[in-house]
Amino acid sequence: MARVYLDHNATAPLRDEARTAMIEAMDIVGNPSSVHAEGRAAKALVEKARAQLAEAVGCKPAEVVFTSGATEAASFLGRVPEVRDVFVEETAHDALWANRRESAWTERPEGPGHTLAMGLANSETGVITLPPEKVAGQWPVGRARADWLCLDVTQVIGRMPFSFAWSGADFAILSAHKFGGPKGVGALIVRDGVDIAALQSGGGQEMGRRSGTENIIGIAGMGAAIAAAMGDLSAGRWDEIKEFRNILEKALEAASKETIFVGKDAQRLPNTTCVLTPGWKGETQVMAMDLAGFAISAGSACSSGKVRESRVLRAMGYDAGDAACAIRVSLGLETRQEDVLRFADVWAEKLKKHRARAA
Amino acid sequence: MARVYLDHNATAPLRDEARTAMIEAMDIVGNPSSVHAEGRAAKALVEKARAQLAEAVGCKPAEVVFTSGATEAASFLGRVPEVRDVFVEETAHDALWANRRESAWTERPEGPGHTLAMGLANSETGVITLPPEKVAGQWPVGRARADWLCLDVTQVIGRMPFSFAWSGADFAILSAHKFGGPKGVGALIVRDGVDIAALQSGGGQEMGRRSGTENIIGIAGMGAAIAAAMGDLSAGRWDEIKEFRNILEKALEAASKETIFVGKDAQRLPNTTCVLTPGWKGETQVMAMDLAGFAISAGSACSSGKVRESRVLRAMGYDAGDAACAIRVSLGLETRQEDVLRFADVWAEKLKKHRARAA
Repeated sequence: MARVYLDHNATAPLRDEARTAMIEAMDIVGNPSSVHAEGRAAKALVEKARAQLAEAVGCKPAEVVFTSGATEAASFLGRVPEVRDVFVEETAHDALWANRRESAWTERPEGPGHTLAMGLANSETGVITLPPEKVAGQWPVGRARADWLCLDVTQVIGRMPFSFAWSGADFAILSAHKFGGPKGVGALIVRDGVDIAALQSGGGQEMGRRSGTENIIGIAGMGAAIAAAMGDLSAGRWDEIKEFRNILEKALEAASKETIFVGKDAQRLPNTTCVLTPGWKGETQVMAMDLAGFAISAGSACSSGKVRESRVLRAMGYDAGDAACAIRVSLGLETRQEDVLRFADVWAEKLKKHRARAA
Repeated sequence: MARVYLDHNATAPLRDEARTAMIEAMDIVGNPSSVHAEGRAAKALVEKARAQLAEAVGCKPAEVVFTSGATEAASFLGRVPEVRDVFVEETAHDALWANRRESAWTERPEGPGHTLAMGLANSETGVITLPPEKVAGQWPVGRARADWLCLDVTQVIGRMPFSFAWSGADFAILSAHKFGGPKGVGALIVRDGVDIAALQSGGGQEMGRRSGTENIIGIAGMGAAIAAAMGDLSAGRWDEIKEFRNILEKALEAASKETIFVGKDAQRLPNTTCVLTPGWKGETQVMAMDLAGFAISAGSACSSGKVRESRVLRAMGYDAGDAACAIRVSLGLETRQEDVLRFADVWAEKLKKHRARAA
């Protein structure tokens, strides 16, 4: 029987539209920095993708800085002297978390550069956290205030409506591979008029904000993927996915009364469920379900093979024992109702075996 | 008539082997950090490419850190606290040059971290500069000494034999798109036992040295490209290209006695000629030849559209006027003898017209 991939928050399959655009881009010989015809053709391809992304994200094309992914995009927080204190929400992705610099927060030197960085949707639970309302030009952070807001919209783009312009954010980070583009390409969105030091120095590409020859095949794939993803979003495809997610939760609940669906009462991504079954380690569930043909994850994704307790669930108030007993099931556009029903059946079977062994 | 691409030092066309590997990689669904079957397949693909690159570069697989290109790889110089003074050879690529920190050189604090960074082959002239011999554990830099050596081998890999192990270097940087891999992927080679801070922080990929989900399609293309490129190198394909380069230089010389071939008497890359014709701006030549169907460049490549005087030629002793009158013609594996002869004919015609206008 064919495998069922239910780990879309870790990465989504490449969309056909991205594949086609990438294969076409393979024939473009030039370097976008070259002035000859071959170079101009490569440049045109990058600018087409920039316009596609800007339209989807609700920003100006000139606000888009192409990067190698959300992690590189987030690194501006740790690298740019203008960005000083960085207060990162505890449930944020590692890419933001690694750049936190709260220690100096209380000292709070004069001048701007105090930044609040947060995920708009949590990758592990799907829970949406809306940014605080700006008061007198600043974002409230506990008892302090931040001048700038950086939103990680990686899990949101293509799955829910979002507009950088109306979000009020000064920066946003995102990655193509969550919406069906290739891995290894993403973007930092920088509000018009905000000056940042270069992410990388050298040839001066991306208007001096990120040197290095552009990943034109990847960028072309990203542009085509986001354009197609926005079409699916408008067509209501994610409402269908949300329904499958809800059907899945009902089926799992029926099999296990003590199972908790983390964040179920909050606003969530349409495709994500975080399933916590006390006493049954997430790691064990992932391996058992993998052998049975289902790809899911335990706790945080996007981190290098390490299995460890979830910072996110701990921050939400779960103790270490319970936090270790969560799995994340994240659906995608190719998920069918029969996939989630089959998942629920196999999972219930495995749980029965687990209980029998534990008893 | 088909266009003739003679700007391989800016970027080379994608090799068929890379294209095939990339299209295959598009079917790999997983994130290399995921523990399930899909994730392990993605991880295996990355590790295969790492082994291919290591074999070609003459290093251990564990010494390879995949990056988004040579520019990102070079950025470790400016980011890692262990690397303090960075003395960069004046003819080095902008990616190294942007990271120079010579100001503190004379003060030279205690402890290691004094780094000499240089290009092994110059991208504009093709001139090879061998690293100085290490004396008492240190590299001579003027009257001072450096502890560490960083070699930019971007223009060398796949075109000339190179071994990181015997080079004595501690670091090397390179980019896939010069040897027929895709743009936007490269590597930093870090000698075993040398500790660097992470290039990017987050999920801990690349053994903690470079976080961020791997560009698996690009990395697969890079691996396939370098393996194929090493086959061509062993087969002597570049000796043929060198012959065409020499035929080109003879033909241009016959058309213009005052033309200088910069670095002709030095050891050079087999595919590169830097053609300086006093009084005829390189920029003008590039545009005229572009209209006639030939892609070449003026001065430095890989820098963002800006036309400016060549730092490299100025460093070699040419005055600003002459330095502005150089073009770079760089051949590749698909270049044929008839291409360079046709180039020489058209160039000679354009030169005649230029002289007529100037007279």
